[in-house]
Amino acid sequence: MSSSDIFIGEIIGTAVLILLGGGVVAAVVLKRSKAQNAGWVAITFGWGFAVMTAVYMTGSLSGAHLNPAVTVGIALKDGDWSQVPYYFAGQLLGAMIGAALVWIAYYGHFQAHLTDPETASKPAVEGPGPVLGIFSTGPEIRNVWQNLATEIIGTLVLVLAVLTQGLNDDGKGLNVLGGLIVAFVVVGIGLSLGGPTGYAINPARDLGPRIVHALLPLPNKGGSDWGYAWIPVVGPLIGGAAAAGIYSLAFAG
Amino acid sequence: MSSSDIFIGEIIGTAVLILLGGGVVAAVVLKRSKAQNAGWVAITFGWGFAVMTAVYMTGSLSGAHLNPAVTVGIALKDGDWSQVPYYFAGQLLGAMIGAALVWIAYYGHFQAHLTDPETASKPAVEGPGPVLGIFSTGPEIRNVWQNLATEIIGTLVLVLAVLTQGLNDDGKGLNVLGGLIVAFVVVGIGLSLGGPTGYAINPARDLGPRIVHALLPLPNKGGSDWGYAWIPVVGPLIGGAAAAGIYSLAFAG
Amino acid sequence: MSSSDIFIGEIIGTAVLILLGGGVVAAVVLKRSKAQNAGWVAITFGWGFAVMTAVYMTGSLSGAHLNPAVTVGIALKDGDWSQVPYYFAGQLLGAMIGAALVWIAYYGHFQAHLTDPETASKPAVEGPGPVLGIFSTGPEIRNVWQNLATEIIGTLVLVLAVLTQGLNDDGKGLNVLGGLIVAFVVVGIGLSLGGPTGYAINPARDLGPRIVHALLPLPNKGGSDWGYAWIPVVGPLIGGAAAAGIYSLAFAG
Amino acid sequence: MSSSDIFIGEIIGTAVLILLGGGVVAAVVLKRSKAQNAGWVAITFGWGFAVMTAVYMTGSLSGAHLNPAVTVGIALKDGDWSQVPYYFAGQLLGAMIGAALVWIAYYGHFQAHLTDPETASKPAVEGPGPVLGIFSTGPEIRNVWQNLATEIIGTLVLVLAVLTQGLNDDGKGLNVLGGLIVAFVVVGIGLSLGGPTGYAINPARDLGPRIVHALLPLPNKGGSDWGYAWIPVVGPLIGGAAAAGIYSLAFAG
Repeated sequence: MSSSDIFIGEIIGTAVLILLGGGVVAAVVLKRSKAQNAGWVAITFGWGFAVMTAVYMTGSLSGAHLNPAVTVGIALKDGDWSQVPYYFAGQLLGAMIGAALVWIAYYGHFQAHLTDPETASKPAVEGPGPVLGIFSTGPEIRNVWQNLATEIIGTLVLVLAVLTQGLNDDGKGLNVLGGLIVAFVVVGIGLSLGGPTGYAINPARDLGPRIVHALLPLPNKGGSDWGYAWIPVVGPLIGGAAAAGIYSLAFAG
Repeated sequence: MSSSDIFIGEIIGTAVLILLGGGVVAAVVLKRSKAQNAGWVAITFGWGFAVMTAVYMTGSLSGAHLNPAVTVGIALKDGDWSQVPYYFAGQLLGAMIGAALVWIAYYGHFQAHLTDPETASKPAVEGPGPVLGIFSTGPEIRNVWQNLATEIIGTLVLVLAVLTQGLNDDGKGLNVLGGLIVAFVVVGIGLSLGGPTGYAINPARDLGPRIVHALLPLPNKGGSDWGYAWIPVVGPLIGGAAAAGIYSLAFAG
Repeated sequence: MSSSDIFIGEIIGTAVLILLGGGVVAAVVLKRSKAQNAGWVAITFGWGFAVMTAVYMTGSLSGAHLNPAVTVGIALKDGDWSQVPYYFAGQLLGAMIGAALVWIAYYGHFQAHLTDPETASKPAVEGPGPVLGIFSTGPEIRNVWQNLATEIIGTLVLVLAVLTQGLNDDGKGLNVLGGLIVAFVVVGIGLSLGGPTGYAINPARDLGPRIVHALLPLPNKGGSDWGYAWIPVVGPLIGGAAAAGIYSLAFAG
Repeated sequence: MSSSDIFIGEIIGTAVLILLGGGVVAAVVLKRSKAQNAGWVAITFGWGFAVMTAVYMTGSLSGAHLNPAVTVGIALKDGDWSQVPYYFAGQLLGAMIGAALVWIAYYGHFQAHLTDPETASKPAVEGPGPVLGIFSTGPEIRNVWQNLATEIIGTLVLVLAVLTQGLNDDGKGLNVLGGLIVAFVVVGIGLSLGGPTGYAINPARDLGPRIVHALLPLPNKGGSDWGYAWIPVVGPLIGGAAAAGIYSLAFAG
């Protein structure tokens, strides 16, 4: 894969990921959305199908990492870091584009939600306001070590699932099924490990939209919670590296 | 594929799509339905499995476009418009048949719902009445540019997912998996981008049933909201064409 | 396939279908079940995975029809009725065994539910009591022609989906995917067309458990609603035959 | 497969199974989790995707039994017990590791939940307290014979589904689809047969986490309900053996 295909593929794929992933949170949170209060099952499947759509769409261009933690895990496994900058750049840029598209698709709902005194964001004390939660993750209970541990554990499961997928491939179609399986792995991580921090498990998925939240002219939007922003970057990178370590110890025999 | 197979395949497929898609909205909305208030997850999966069922049923006859926006995207990609009229005609006719079948399957529930003063349709001000919503889409917040943008974005994701599917096909079965993956793409678009307008993302899916709503002898049915009707036709066609544009720029290398 | 494999396969498969299908209704309805009030999404996916489990388990023995309407549709398509009696007998017997297993698995919950004055069955006027609903279907609004039409339409979709599946098979695995796709077709029919009558779409699924309901020593169980019992037998058989007719007209070219 | 691959594979796989499976119960039960009260559909799909993730991750190492009842069923079918001790040991150890990881991921939520007088565990009379339910199963109605029967029936369906999977394999990919199908079988068993006892259907899944519950320094954790602990061990083992019996009678022709 050429560097430009990787860059373009990751932009498109991560933009679709965040458009649909941020979109489902907007759909469930914002006033007067048809999906308001559709619940955690809607959110987790929404993120899962976001992954699935993006993976099948861009797999042929860039391999569809869509996540710096996946890129790190694969680079460690393969010992090849040459394309990593193109992956990272495409992922961050794509995530920002996706977050902006969510804002366009839900423009009137953002306005209605944030200008209503009942639902406008208050200064974040614990947990992100729900509107920041459309862009970035935040913990329900602030506890650096637990929050970091939860992100490490969740990402470890994700990246180890990605790295071991090749082992089941008998040349009969797993590469074709893979996008669906990874999607359901992400639904599973969301259902099971999303409760404490909202499962970033992807540095670009969290940082890109947080930057966009800071830039957008949203009324009464509240802060972007930058004090927490390093955890969903560092935790997933550690988790991805740990997955590569377990892979090399237990699977790469 | 012969023009008559295309015409018949699109009629059957789009009829099944609307029978099951309109049906799930009827099931969730109408009084005394066992599924009343089953929620947005039920609606989005119901539409997804409607797509899946119709795609597998009619793929061998017509390729199962079932959507003029898909037909436009594929025609632009392939540079072949010769069969487009047969696709469009079959899709619109099939959508009308499907909407009529929903009315038959839920006949007593329509009567019970619309003759009860509490649930009979009121003149639409904002948003379609829920009974019109069984047939056609409508926005929760009326805003021409946002509504159009949301339909464009949602359809762009759908048609780009359809156009790129062939790229993953390594001759080992994606054509067989494709119907399932497209179904989940549609569930994902519904969960994530359905909140503002109800995700028509298909001109035939919206226009055909709207005509049937106008024709059926439903008591107290209210208006058919013709002022909005152009948006779920024009938006998806723009989205389908935009997907073909992105495809030719980024993927068709 | 030998007649004895067909008979045994249909017994096992239909027993598993009804054990899991009736089971999910028991789980959602009965007092003190962990799944009480889990809703329509739970019920429809429960029935879908019941189909999936039974199809993969017994496909190699009998082809896993599990439904007289499917058997009729396939017999009409193939012009071969020689094995039909073995299919029918196995399906009815299996459905009765499955219903009895539901009773065993939920024994204490049936007792607790039916001996509590608040939840014991009342004589059915409209709709089955919820406990009869664990065994058999019943309409929310009694209307012979609508109820019959709804069962015909739902079964037509199911059997046409089954008959057309072979057309997509390119020798690359659809027979392996088929059980999953049929399961989701059934989830879709349940979500979309289950609202009025509870979607029997299978004569054995309704009649076998209704007989078991009449026989079991359930306290305060109420009547078995035999006046309705012919509709979920006749409707699905008509639907299955109609599907074979459409298949021969439109697909068998 | 070597004994050490089996041992390591079962440790990793069962740890992931319990991390995600126990995790989804924690997510739904514990105070201040984003998924609190997400319901039975969330729990059953969470466990299903836990199975799927673990099966694809470790299938190449150990065959991914992850369940002593599956190991017994396969050993009876194949007449080979030589690797059984490595399977059992890995499964029990993995389940304990997984339960400890759930505790780490939800550390602050366990503390908040158990130190709040409203939600701290009371001595178990009927049913496990909800916090014990994150680790182990317990019946809603205590009835030794019914509880045992429900676990036998549920496990019989699971193990018979696993044993018959090979029969559908035509060399075109079922081994690749198998993990997804088994996952949905487990979702189905949970939806349909989970109501009475919480569907252990796996001795290691219940016993390992119960030991961890007894060991962990959780405040006000209540008892570990050892009086019930034998049922989710013995019931599933009987169910697995019964499945092997049915397999040899009906399928292994």
